[in-house]
Amino acid sequence: MYSFRNDYSEGCHPKVLEAIAAINGESIVGYGQDAYCGKAAQLIKDLCRAPQAAVEFLVGGTQTNFTAIGAFLRPWESVICAATGHVNTHEVGAVEGVGHKLLHVQVAGDGKLSPAHILPLVEECRDEHLTLPRLVYISDATETGAVYTKAELTALSACCKDNGLLLFLDGARLGCAFAAQENDLTLPDLARLCDAFYIGGTKNGALMGEALVITNPALQPHFFRMMKREGAVLAKGFLLGVQFQALLEDGLYWRIAKNSVDTAQALQAGLEELGFPMMTPSSTNQIFPILPDSLLPELDKIATHEVWSKQDETHTIVRFVTSFATEMTSVTGFLEALKRSI
Amino acid sequence: MYSFRNDYSEGCHPKVLEAIAAINGESIVGYGQDAYCGKAAQLIKDLCRAPQAAVEFLVGGTQTNFTAIGAFLRPWESVICAATGHVNTHEVGAVEGVGHKLLHVQVAGDGKLSPAHILPLVEECRDEHLTLPRLVYISDATETGAVYTKAELTALSACCKDNGLLLFLDGARLGCAFAAQENDLTLPDLARLCDAFYIGGTKNGALMGEALVITNPALQPHFFRMMKREGAVLAKGFLLGVQFQALLEDGLYWRIAKNSVDTAQALQAGLEELGFPMMTPSSTNQIFPILPDSLLPELDKIATHEVWSKQDETHTIVRFVTSFATEMTSVTGFLEALKRSI
Amino acid sequence: MYSFRNDYSEGCHPKVLEAIAAINGESIVGYGQDAYCGKAAQLIKDLCRAPQAAVEFLVGGTQTNFTAIGAFLRPWESVICAATGHVNTHEVGAVEGVGHKLLHVQVAGDGKLSPAHILPLVEECRDEHLTLPRLVYISDATETGAVYTKAELTALSACCKDNGLLLFLDGARLGCAFAAQENDLTLPDLARLCDAFYIGGTKNGALMGEALVITNPALQPHFFRMMKREGAVLAKGFLLGVQFQALLEDGLYWRIAKNSVDTAQALQAGLEELGFPMMTPSSTNQIFPILPDSLLPELDKIATHEVWSKQDETHTIVRFVTSFATEMTSVTGFLEALKRSI
Amino acid sequence: MYSFRNDYSEGCHPKVLEAIAAINGESIVGYGQDAYCGKAAQLIKDLCRAPQAAVEFLVGGTQTNFTAIGAFLRPWESVICAATGHVNTHEVGAVEGVGHKLLHVQVAGDGKLSPAHILPLVEECRDEHLTLPRLVYISDATETGAVYTKAELTALSACCKDNGLLLFLDGARLGCAFAAQENDLTLPDLARLCDAFYIGGTKNGALMGEALVITNPALQPHFFRMMKREGAVLAKGFLLGVQFQALLEDGLYWRIAKNSVDTAQALQAGLEELGFPMMTPSSTNQIFPILPDSLLPELDKIATHEVWSKQDETHTIVRFVTSFATEMTSVTGFLEALKRSI
Repeated sequence: MYSFRNDYSEGCHPKVLEAIAAINGESIVGYGQDAYCGKAAQLIKDLCRAPQAAVEFLVGGTQTNFTAIGAFLRPWESVICAATGHVNTHEVGAVEGVGHKLLHVQVAGDGKLSPAHILPLVEECRDEHLTLPRLVYISDATETGAVYTKAELTALSACCKDNGLLLFLDGARLGCAFAAQENDLTLPDLARLCDAFYIGGTKNGALMGEALVITNPALQPHFFRMMKREGAVLAKGFLLGVQFQALLEDGLYWRIAKNSVDTAQALQAGLEELGFPMMTPSSTNQIFPILPDSLLPELDKIATHEVWSKQDETHTIVRFVTSFATEMTSVTGFLEALKRSI
Repeated sequence: MYSFRNDYSEGCHPKVLEAIAAINGESIVGYGQDAYCGKAAQLIKDLCRAPQAAVEFLVGGTQTNFTAIGAFLRPWESVICAATGHVNTHEVGAVEGVGHKLLHVQVAGDGKLSPAHILPLVEECRDEHLTLPRLVYISDATETGAVYTKAELTALSACCKDNGLLLFLDGARLGCAFAAQENDLTLPDLARLCDAFYIGGTKNGALMGEALVITNPALQPHFFRMMKREGAVLAKGFLLGVQFQALLEDGLYWRIAKNSVDTAQALQAGLEELGFPMMTPSSTNQIFPILPDSLLPELDKIATHEVWSKQDETHTIVRFVTSFATEMTSVTGFLEALKRSI
Repeated sequence: MYSFRNDYSEGCHPKVLEAIAAINGESIVGYGQDAYCGKAAQLIKDLCRAPQAAVEFLVGGTQTNFTAIGAFLRPWESVICAATGHVNTHEVGAVEGVGHKLLHVQVAGDGKLSPAHILPLVEECRDEHLTLPRLVYISDATETGAVYTKAELTALSACCKDNGLLLFLDGARLGCAFAAQENDLTLPDLARLCDAFYIGGTKNGALMGEALVITNPALQPHFFRMMKREGAVLAKGFLLGVQFQALLEDGLYWRIAKNSVDTAQALQAGLEELGFPMMTPSSTNQIFPILPDSLLPELDKIATHEVWSKQDETHTIVRFVTSFATEMTSVTGFLEALKRSI
Repeated sequence: MYSFRNDYSEGCHPKVLEAIAAINGESIVGYGQDAYCGKAAQLIKDLCRAPQAAVEFLVGGTQTNFTAIGAFLRPWESVICAATGHVNTHEVGAVEGVGHKLLHVQVAGDGKLSPAHILPLVEECRDEHLTLPRLVYISDATETGAVYTKAELTALSACCKDNGLLLFLDGARLGCAFAAQENDLTLPDLARLCDAFYIGGTKNGALMGEALVITNPALQPHFFRMMKREGAVLAKGFLLGVQFQALLEDGLYWRIAKNSVDTAQALQAGLEELGFPMMTPSSTNQIFPILPDSLLPELDKIATHEVWSKQDETHTIVRFVTSFATEMTSVTGFLEALKRSI
């Protein structure tokens, strides 16, 4: 049975577990006030060339999204996002739970926002009976596997600055975004172009953890209290620091992402060769082939995966995701097994 | 340097880490829908003799408190708690953050609530211009180290039932409560007397994790969605299941607690022998000696600890906490070092 | 200058003011616990043939919407509404402000919801990572002037019951809905088919006030506390009771609505005769002609109105609204003046 | 039957009703964007000598309190208030409803806060695991009838400024506060010393309405959107403007307050002469005599009032309140009737 269900189906990269084990005997101060978090934060600021940034370690993606958005916005302010954005779909109304409306726009299959999506909303909301759009939420990679180019992010950032909007980038799959062939963005670019973004650990080799980088100094004060209020401060916060240190200090994070993307891209190419079209082309570690329904019972026996949605009466879109633990031999083995089932 | 700062200063018990390492290669379904969580939940229901209970695994204590309270209450309902209750002090208004007022009452040094604290509030709040008290929050052990007896909890439970109040027990330090000499409560007692309670992992040998047991069936539906909304669903939820399984399947949880309580009680006895009174007698793993301020600089060199509050012009209350990692030789070593400093 | 800006541009119907003046010398108990509110509530229950209903008087529409929805739903539950629904557009995120997501669907120009809009959302949201749809919000008349037929509302109600959804009807313009030629609904129909609805006073002759009718007994307990929490209890609540009594005890409410609808329909017919198409046909007191932009400067001089939206490069949709205070001579006078401007 | 139940038991002062009636035929723009609100706001800014202030008209006191506090604070910030403060008692957790903790302190019977109450909380809350105190809520007159002197308010204001705290004054009974013999505060003093305060209409001769004066420019932007989100924008906002204009343009507001205070003080003096002590001395329009329980049945027949609380086994504290409608002959008549009952 091959495993393509998700990038959070396995524990963590062995080197991350080693790092956790290595400090298991130590007595360390709690709540992220420790030296491991300090070093990991400094490492991230160095990688981002953003000495003024604040780096905070949270446990998961939904938590990071609503804690940051809840901290950054005033009650009457709202979030512009793609209809396919994670905050709008798979978070049970967490952003609304902290009191903010999502102004979600229909976008193309790649799930990317552009100034053309944003400007009409800004214009419409000059009416004071509507919420005030104040933050643009994007994901890189997007929920359908696409990545932003430097030109696209630069245009978005300029549009935000011109219109008093904060730019927030959900980097739950940032490693894979940066490992994509089309990518020309770097951490210093994100630090320069976004007000805040995060480097996802959960989906890229950590047991859990997201490193939120708040580059806009106006958004930094008292963020710890907000985290505490939202249950987002891990008592043994050093567990997050030590994992990000292990992931980032010698580039393990990027090697993991490269493996995820390489295996997913091989899988995508192989499926296309077998004649299966994609819902949308992906350049990262999530791919979305359209399969005949007749193939699904057999697929269930060969590999874990998720059903994404119905394409038409006789076809279904499924999602395959790769991770740090996916081996290239699994991809080739799976493709061969599938070929036998067609 | 001896370590008495907290019971979340070390990673986890070695057997817990082993259990995590043992499954690190597996591919497992996410969000707590896996077999490890299933087995741990069943184990807890068996230990509680509560087959009807729902068991949910969350990451931390503050998160568990506000997620449960937010799920159980309607907007106009409020929480009765001790002024010293964790929800009222060290959670940055997390319960208010989900919209509920805390009606906190002044209690004795042991931090325990009794019907006498509750009934006047119930009476006063018959006035419809006030919130409706609907849930009583208690901690066992309390924030100052005391434990409830079966008689006390039975009386509280009856008072709650008579007055339409839910009884919620914060068990962040439940292991130590049950290891206390005065304790005569069992898990089946809690399951019978409380509407919900949790078995704390973070402060008793786990990396992180709290096992919430919802025994009142009316409070169970849709709790997963509430957790999701509050960022309380761990993507790799199996990490929580496997830890609780390791802790509970052969009694490791209770052995850890016994070590914590034994070492703390030896420390308390030793300090009293040295002539230092306690702020309040503790029967668990947190103790609160009153020390002369002149001793504090020396103490800072010998052992980590927390300053609790000023007692008077020349004395300070400090808090010492023991954990699964505390050895009895540390207690005796510390007491000898302290004796030399007096 | 003719006035077609809104149905809340004038104080109140003279008979309503008389009723307020008549009790101005009395000393009356506050917060709606008085005999006037009691009588008005009884009158409404009688008109609805719903003796089990609870009737509550609130000050305004937005307030009624979010107070009711906030009281009825649990945190993880959401609202299905038309994208054009008032809760989704002109209330600055008030429903999100009490923590609930709006699942808004694109509908036809008439702004009406049908089971076909609802069922796919119910299906999609079986996924526990999404909110649980729990309440369907509709407006009668809709925001674009249409009304529901008895057959339509019956189908919606059945769909809601079948799917565990509450049906909530915003009746800010209920008087005009009932005065529409197509209408075949009655108050007893609403009481039977909806879980809650309100009879709007603000836009139909009162100074202010909405009468919320909660017919579902499960939604009634403690509603007063919810109102108080949301600032929705008027200290001098008797002002609302006395107004609704004046409006409803001899049918004044329906006569006012008839005047509003008659004048608006005459205006619509007259504009169509002049060759101006409508954005959508209206059967109530709001009409939406599409006018050439060249006519707008002249229109600004003749009558107050609101610009609704751009139709195309050279045309604009404007909104005209009539009220209890609109006289038929104003309609004819305006149409003549407009004819001269073409 | 004499009426001393409350200062919102009667409609409004006849001159206020005249003003409402006078504009009843006009067509006026909604939502407080009209000329009457404009004039009333300008009048208030002139009276406050605060040209930079923003003046907003809301419907009621609870609504004004939580809308302002919710707009001014960030999620992790809290409110310092007296335990007897209206926000902490009779508002069903409205401030918690918008997510903020109340740090309430025990105060003397007069219900007044001083720097000595505030400073320890500020000190304690330097701990980042606690909320950040950010706003001090006071009432003038207090809930037990006392008033602040200029020296007291000046000291409070300085303490707030020194500690990064906003000062918010609930002026639901500001008229009576200023009419008290001890008062030496003026509107320009409030404008200078507070960040925001309101001039209460509901309890001083208006049908409803509170005029919120936001003197701190940092708190002004987008307040309208916050009001809208909280259902605090009256559709026919001109009703509030025209009432405040009528009350303030020729001093009617202060004459009404003088009548309330004069009659209440005469009542207090008369009751003391009859030998009844007061719970606390009041200098405004609410008084709190301690009466023998044996007298209560007779009192119920003579005058409306509220039972405040039990004083001891055989005595009860009752509250008498006077208003614009209270005549001095009612006071003397009541005292005589009471004398006959003793």
